[in-house]
Parts: sequence; C-alpha cells; structure tokens
Amino acid sequence: MEELAGAFGSSASLALRLGQTVFSSSSLFFMCLELGFYSYTAFCYFVTVMGLVILWSITLLVVDAYSVFIQSLPIQRRLIVIIFFGDMIMSYLSLAAACSTSSIVDLLLEAGESNCPPKLCDRYQLSAAMAFLSWFLSSVMRVVPQ
Amino acid sequence: MEELAGAFGSSASLALRLGQTVFSSSSLFFMCLELGFYSYTAFCYFVTVMGLVILWSITLLVVDAYSVFIQSLPIQRRLIVIIFFGDMIMSYLSLAAACSTSSIVDLLLEAGESNCPPKLCDRYQLSAAMAFLSWFLSSVMRVVPQ
Repeated sequence: MEELAGAFGSSASLALRLGQTVFSSSSLFFMCLELGFYSYTAFCYFVTVMGLVILWSITLLVVDAYSVFIQSLPIQRRLIVIIFFGDMIMSYLSLAAACSTSSIVDLLLEAGESNCPPKLCDRYQLSAAMAFLSWFLSSVMRVVPQ
Repeated sequence: MEELAGAFGSSASLALRLGQTVFSSSSLFFMCLELGFYSYTAFCYFVTVMGLVILWSITLLVVDAYSVFIQSLPIQRRLIVIIFFGDMIMSYLSLAAACSTSSIVDLLLEAGESNCPPKLCDRYQLSAAMAFLSWFLSSVMRVVPQ
C-alpha cells in the first residue's frame, strides 16, 4: 500500500481527477439533455452512477488541488485505503453503467428509428463513450501509482 | 506486489479458481442451450468473453492444483504480474459482459413475451447471474491476497 501513497495529492492525480470529473459530467449532460432516459432502467442506473462518480471525483479533485497548490496534506494510511476502495467501487459501477447503456443503445439502433431517433441515439452513444473514458481514468488511478 | 505472491498456488486460490471455472462454464452453458443468442450483439460478446474466462481459469486451476497436490512451484515475479493483469482484464471483461447481458434481458422482458419467451429469458437471467458470480470471484482474487 505504501507505493500508492504517492498517488494522493500529487499533480498527476489532480490531472486524472480533473479528467474524470470532466468526462463523467459531460456523460451525465448528454444523457439528461432530454428526459427520454426515464423509460429505460439501464439509463436511470447510468444517471444515478454518474451522479455518484461526479460527487466522488469533485471531492477528491478539491482535496488534490488544495494539496498541490496551497498546502501539502499529511498522508494517512486509513485515508489511502478508503480512497483505494472508493475508486475501485466507482470504477466497477461506472464500467457497469457504460456497458449496459451501450448495449441498450446498440439494441435500440438495431430495432429501428421508431424506437430511437438518430439524434437521440447519437447522444446516448456519446454519453456511453464519455462514461468509458471516465472509467478508464479511474482504473488508471488504481493501477499506476504516481 | 510481494504480498500477492502468496495467492498463487495456494489452496485458497485453488478454491477460487474452481468456483470461477464452475460459474463461467455454467453461464456459458445456460446461454448456449438454445442458439437464439446469435440475434443479439451483446449475447455474442458474452459468449466470447465467457469462453476466454473459462480458458483462463481452467489453465490457472490446473497450475494451482499441481502446485497444491503434487509439487509446489517456484513463484516468479514476472508470472505473478502476468496473472495479476490477466485477472484484471478478465474481471473487467466479465463484468462488462454480465452487465450488458442483464440490461438486454431486462429490456426484452419489458418489451413483452413476444420478444423473449419466459423460459428463454429465465435462462438468460441465470446466465448473467452466473457471470456476475464468476466476476465476483475474479475480483476477490485481485483484492484479497491469501
């Protein structure tokens, strides 16, 4: 666990958190641009998870920014463990949300334009792609210690 | 990485690999019992991923069984890293497959019996549940070193 300690509060961690926040926010934005997502369970789950991921990444972004720009925070082992497991859970949740959304969009596209107008489906696809990028950044955070 | 070394070739690892093999095989069995899965991209992806997971877990099951029952194998750092990253990739792939399958089944159930007869849909659900259990075991393998 010691080698992970460097990750928290470093500028590399700050950049990754910033990316995670941007991608998860934009994926939620594209999904919620119209209220059609209420019709599908997978899309509702997606919105819930992305809300959680945004909260989590913004909190850690603020802490990282404080640690980099203002004052370096002391690194506690317990905090690192919490962040590690939190990242793990968020990573699994966002991967699950991105996969279920993209598979539903794929099925809707196959079912024809009556079920999913191209403009709306393009937005859903974009949203799923952003969620995949957000997941990728959160898994990078766990695998590569900075 | 040193603390992970204990995981490879231990009896706990053998039990987890056995569970993973059983769950992934049964999920593939329930999915392929009828050839209806060819109609959906997500189900085809599911079958491919489960095939890969079975191959991976059977290989490591054999190595673990050899190490536990016949002769303890020397633990090489490079091998542990390969197994760690292999488990990580398999865990992500099987979670993605399980999530996309379960979301498709949910949508088919909502669409009515004409799209998915109850007997067939029950099988797909069972298959997704088995895939989730297989994913859970492979993620336990990564998080908790024995």
